Amino acid sequence: MNRPLTIDEGQVVKLLRVRDSIRLAREAYVRLAKGEALNPERVWLSVPDGASVFAMPAYVLGHKTVSVKVARLNPENPGRLFPSVMATIYVYDSITGHELAQVQADSLTALRTAASSAVATDLLAGKSCETLGIIGTGRQASAHVPAMLEVRKFSRILAYSRDPAHRNAFAANIGKTYSVQAEPADTPEKVVESSEVLVLATNSQVPLFHGGLVQPGTHVNAVGAALPGAREVDSLLVSRSLLVVDSIPQAKSSYGDVLIPMKEGNIKETDFYELGDLLVHPTKASRKPGQVSLFKSGGLAVLDAVFADHLVSMVPRHAD
Amino acid sequence: MNRPLTIDEGQVVKLLRVRDSIRLAREAYVRLAKGEALNPERVWLSVPDGASVFAMPAYVLGHKTVSVKVARLNPENPGRLFPSVMATIYVYDSITGHELAQVQADSLTALRTAASSAVATDLLAGKSCETLGIIGTGRQASAHVPAMLEVRKFSRILAYSRDPAHRNAFAANIGKTYSVQAEPADTPEKVVESSEVLVLATNSQVPLFHGGLVQPGTHVNAVGAALPGAREVDSLLVSRSLLVVDSIPQAKSSYGDVLIPMKEGNIKETDFYELGDLLVHPTKASRKPGQVSLFKSGGLAVLDAVFADHLVSMVPRHAD
Repeated sequence: MNRPLTIDEGQVVKLLRVRDSIRLAREAYVRLAKGEALNPERVWLSVPDGASVFAMPAYVLGHKTVSVKVARLNPENPGRLFPSVMATIYVYDSITGHELAQVQADSLTALRTAASSAVATDLLAGKSCETLGIIGTGRQASAHVPAMLEVRKFSRILAYSRDPAHRNAFAANIGKTYSVQAEPADTPEKVVESSEVLVLATNSQVPLFHGGLVQPGTHVNAVGAALPGAREVDSLLVSRSLLVVDSIPQAKSSYGDVLIPMKEGNIKETDFYELGDLLVHPTKASRKPGQVSLFKSGGLAVLDAVFADHLVSMVPRHAD
Repeated sequence: MNRPLTIDEGQVVKLLRVRDSIRLAREAYVRLAKGEALNPERVWLSVPDGASVFAMPAYVLGHKTVSVKVARLNPENPGRLFPSVMATIYVYDSITGHELAQVQADSLTALRTAASSAVATDLLAGKSCETLGIIGTGRQASAHVPAMLEVRKFSRILAYSRDPAHRNAFAANIGKTYSVQAEPADTPEKVVESSEVLVLATNSQVPLFHGGLVQPGTHVNAVGAALPGAREVDSLLVSRSLLVVDSIPQAKSSYGDVLIPMKEGNIKETDFYELGDLLVHPTKASRKPGQVSLFKSGGLAVLDAVFADHLVSMVPRHAD
């Protein structure tokens, strides 16, 4: 029996260009919104004091492959020498079901999440933005920098992490890699008050800042917590925002950022939109002048499926 | 990075003894019924004219591993040189989430399904049974023979497949392997009318026989179809049976054998029991004299998790 093809982290990073990632993410949202993809609600469990495990199957009509991403998450991991998020995409032939490939998806998860935020930012943010604010300086934050620069001409990036060494290194590294001015900030508030676009990419379980501090007209991408009890933004920010999510069913089942204000009565079930729906029907909703827009994504299996299908088509099958 | 340990079909078959399998299956049901295991409802999708894909995570409290089985099913496959069911169990460390092992689970799926039927048969069937009837002669049917012989002293096995060559070979092979008389039957009705225990292990989408033919007191294990539109037994058989399923939520979401009679109004939502619950509380329900008992299983992730954890603990980790 052939071993399935393995596409490792290095190949993923080399093969997935930022522009293509954004195109693939947009395609995934549009095809899902048009009813041309299957993305059943993912299933997850949380081991008490251990890993949360998400199993995420998806298929795009007409594709050669069907895939299941399995993501494992434990924010306590860094002290144990494993990343806080690990993911693998298992890729099968969509007709016979036999296994074709396994894609190491730690980087892919960050790249597709960043691409997804870029699609949302391109749709929802003002056309001219000077400052991008990033809270969190991990793998997700890093992946967001080139994706955000692809959709808006930012001249400045402000970054915050609780650890001063992390935020200094993150800013220095951006300054070296991209032609943009990058500065560390010593509080999240300083980032929030000065940015027209925000990226929240942390492991936080509780809101990172007071929602009243976000300037009117700001677009916020929140990509951290995707479990019912955890969130990065408070109910005030949610209730003053045009709220867009990557998946309404998924938001209702597992995004604390949405569920907690809903349970408190601060927003209603009808108060939010799905990104793909707005891409296909752009007039359905738009940010009122001065309103904030908030894109909350917890990660959609169909994005993983589209990215994996693309990668498998790029890597010639080796004989073994 | 270490490659995860691979446990292949050959090792699985060699390592999983029938008696241990039955013990493991019983343990899985009991621990789940006691609330000591996590077995969220599995997620599945069906590619139009292609494979159905099931992703099944589960975890037993205190175990070192958490696992996700991915099963792919296409009854049209045999003509294309792939089996109609293929499955892999991906095994992760329950604390950190890093991948520990991959278990090829085509045989394991058959072995744990047979073990599960054995647990149900041991609980529900009469104590002295002479004839075991098997409809279907594939991998699942084969795995059921030793499992059934472990819990009841059958003296005769009757087997039916639509293909005369298959049923003849199946019976001949059983006769050579086990000390039991084995005969092919040329209709499913001949099997049904003469057996005290039945195993239905086919890819059929429609009932295999008229439910009135099953003799009073018979115990039936139906392990085939687990999709909402497909079934092996008719509504008459279901309504005259003490109906026990491996999982009530799973039965309600995807077992045609249960859903179709429920939709027709032939049984109510409260008319069936869960195997684990009956193992823990044996007095909750029992077969009335002359009633038929029917165990319908579609396969439970927690069984796969228990089997995979057992295998991983048996195979020493190789260094690479």
